[in-house]
Amino acid sequence: MNMTEITDIAKRAKKASRELSKLTTQQKNKILKDMAESLDKNRKDILKANAKDIKNAEQKNMKPSLIDRLKLNNTRIDQITESIKELIKQKDYIGDIITKKTLKNNLKLTEKRVPFGVIGVIYESRPNVTCDVSALCLKSSSAAILKGGTDAINTNKAIIKLLSSATPIKDSFQLIESTDRKATKEMLRLETYIDLIIPRGGKNLIDFVRLNSKIPVIETGTGNCHIYADKSAGITQAIKIIINAKTQRSGVCNAAEKLLVHEHIAKPLLEKLDKQLKTHNVEIRGCKKTQNIIKCIQATEDDWRTEYLDLIIAIKIVPTLEQAITHINQYGTKHTEAILSKNKKNIETFFQQVDASAVYSNASTRFTDGSEFGMGAEIGISTQKLHARGPMGLKALTTTKYLIRGEGQIRT
Amino acid sequence: MNMTEITDIAKRAKKASRELSKLTTQQKNKILKDMAESLDKNRKDILKANAKDIKNAEQKNMKPSLIDRLKLNNTRIDQITESIKELIKQKDYIGDIITKKTLKNNLKLTEKRVPFGVIGVIYESRPNVTCDVSALCLKSSSAAILKGGTDAINTNKAIIKLLSSATPIKDSFQLIESTDRKATKEMLRLETYIDLIIPRGGKNLIDFVRLNSKIPVIETGTGNCHIYADKSAGITQAIKIIINAKTQRSGVCNAAEKLLVHEHIAKPLLEKLDKQLKTHNVEIRGCKKTQNIIKCIQATEDDWRTEYLDLIIAIKIVPTLEQAITHINQYGTKHTEAILSKNKKNIETFFQQVDASAVYSNASTRFTDGSEFGMGAEIGISTQKLHARGPMGLKALTTTKYLIRGEGQIRT
Repeated sequence: MNMTEITDIAKRAKKASRELSKLTTQQKNKILKDMAESLDKNRKDILKANAKDIKNAEQKNMKPSLIDRLKLNNTRIDQITESIKELIKQKDYIGDIITKKTLKNNLKLTEKRVPFGVIGVIYESRPNVTCDVSALCLKSSSAAILKGGTDAINTNKAIIKLLSSATPIKDSFQLIESTDRKATKEMLRLETYIDLIIPRGGKNLIDFVRLNSKIPVIETGTGNCHIYADKSAGITQAIKIIINAKTQRSGVCNAAEKLLVHEHIAKPLLEKLDKQLKTHNVEIRGCKKTQNIIKCIQATEDDWRTEYLDLIIAIKIVPTLEQAITHINQYGTKHTEAILSKNKKNIETFFQQVDASAVYSNASTRFTDGSEFGMGAEIGISTQKLHARGPMGLKALTTTKYLIRGEGQIRT
Repeated sequence: MNMTEITDIAKRAKKASRELSKLTTQQKNKILKDMAESLDKNRKDILKANAKDIKNAEQKNMKPSLIDRLKLNNTRIDQITESIKELIKQKDYIGDIITKKTLKNNLKLTEKRVPFGVIGVIYESRPNVTCDVSALCLKSSSAAILKGGTDAINTNKAIIKLLSSATPIKDSFQLIESTDRKATKEMLRLETYIDLIIPRGGKNLIDFVRLNSKIPVIETGTGNCHIYADKSAGITQAIKIIINAKTQRSGVCNAAEKLLVHEHIAKPLLEKLDKQLKTHNVEIRGCKKTQNIIKCIQATEDDWRTEYLDLIIAIKIVPTLEQAITHINQYGTKHTEAILSKNKKNIETFFQQVDASAVYSNASTRFTDGSEFGMGAEIGISTQKLHARGPMGLKALTTTKYLIRGEGQIRT
């Protein structure tokens, strides 16, 4: 795929976006319904294409966990169509009026919520992302350019073909079929046609996009999430939450990676937790004080920075709430952080001073997710402070425009 | 100034931001009042430092228009202190609750407006920007790192000294005193400490920042603004608006640079406009059809793209509203665009389809400005779609945070 082909895709997307911006909520909901039905009725096509991708992946000796992410079956297709149908119920933000006022010179000003235009999403090999992104962009009246992982190429082609057949607006969803990063790099230069880039995936992919993009980027995903067990934490509840946040699904961005423990509670908590972590096959790396209480490897400076995405936890004992907050703000990735405490004042201090997209008291970090937050599907979890923070649903996929009505006003 | 010194400034700013985030609206308003008073009472210090900068500029044979931008006098200091006082009256967005709901598992979720943290602003040699940025950041509870133009260094140092003396929180405002772009480049790598970068200035500066920043950037400023005179535009009103938008202040981003005219109205409009433009010393560059009506230089492809910031206008005759919109979306910089028309349907089409931060009907483009929009001071005019669009006041200088209160909830 050469530069001209990618530019053509982007130009067609821009043209489609103008048509998409004219759709009413009712029209968009009808298209979403048709999209879900098209996938539902033609699931054989999807499964056939997916079998091809799985076969290729097996021949390449892909890790079973990655093959599992790639694999579709009837249940997963049901989940995908349900997720599209869920968006029909969600509020349409396009056209919302944010500000309406008359300026001193009698100009009538309206600030309105409008579509972005063209949104490019670069992601890895989970085919459900192809559907979520397409449906979210459609409902927010933007055209989507999708660059999925090479391993899912046949599945993605089949899905995009079916979704496209369900919408009357040509080029609403387009796939970049190229298999290398050169194509991605070229896409990132097309700031004339593409209004927003969202990378979804590992740190490597996100860094590559951030460094090469001339188009504004929303960063998603990296989660070096902490749980801080305060002096007054209830031990039984703390253990239940820590085990859930660490082990319920260890490969995801909202899993806990670090545990900070107030020194007053360290001994009883860690002794009990140790057994539970071992039962769940979690490797422990601890600070020196932790090593005085339980048997574990010594944590290094690198450990405090690392998002393991694995059954590993690093534990640090801290003397004060203040030091826990300082540690989190220094090493965290501004994704999700939690305090376990019965002290209301300490919870408020933690809420006020920890710098992250989502801050919890007395609950697992695993809830930071568009669906859990009631947004229907999400296009990613923003870890930056610009534009959107935390799980991004339909509202995050809009921008604004000032419309000013005059009667001949000039500036003096 | 070396990397260590710049990193130290950034670290101190981060520390200050934590203290700033604790201030109440009342406390911040009191500080703003003290800041204005400090400048007011010590204006001699500012004028003395400014005289030094002016002398240096004259020795370097700086253009009179640039010297004028740099120069302060009592009236200008009055305007600066008034602008700070205006912010006292403006709403404080910090702490606003955007969403409050109970999730299905009884988690209590609150989405709150919170400070950015540390904001870096890179600008040219207008000393009033130093005051506006400091005051805006203070009221929105963020620490400011300022990198102003070298030519204003003495003035900026004097101003920052006075502003700092008025706030109880050390390092709320810090100036990078270095005189080269190397310092800017180093600042742009400090994504651990700086949360947002706003470049204010010409295209060169903005491109430099966008290409070198690891920190999220909001682009401001470039305005290749169009006025489209539709078939039904009133000729007398159209001329009044075009002359105002082009000549009232030609060196600013919201001045009109291009005129598109519907062919039905071209002859009577251009014949009258020609005389007026000549009276105002405006150079005309026209398309071939324009050249058939009035005497002017032929406009090239380059002209359609250029932001002149000068007494030059390029004119193109178009056969339809549709073609005017296509031209604007192709060559505009998404800043400010205007339609002159009596046809309500055409105005709505223009509003809906023109892709810009501010779109006007029957008024001069010159009103796109934080102060005109009633925001008090502005930190710049965003021409991107991410985060903020158009003039950015206090609300644009905030981000959000999800706070989730639990009672032991875990994910199943």
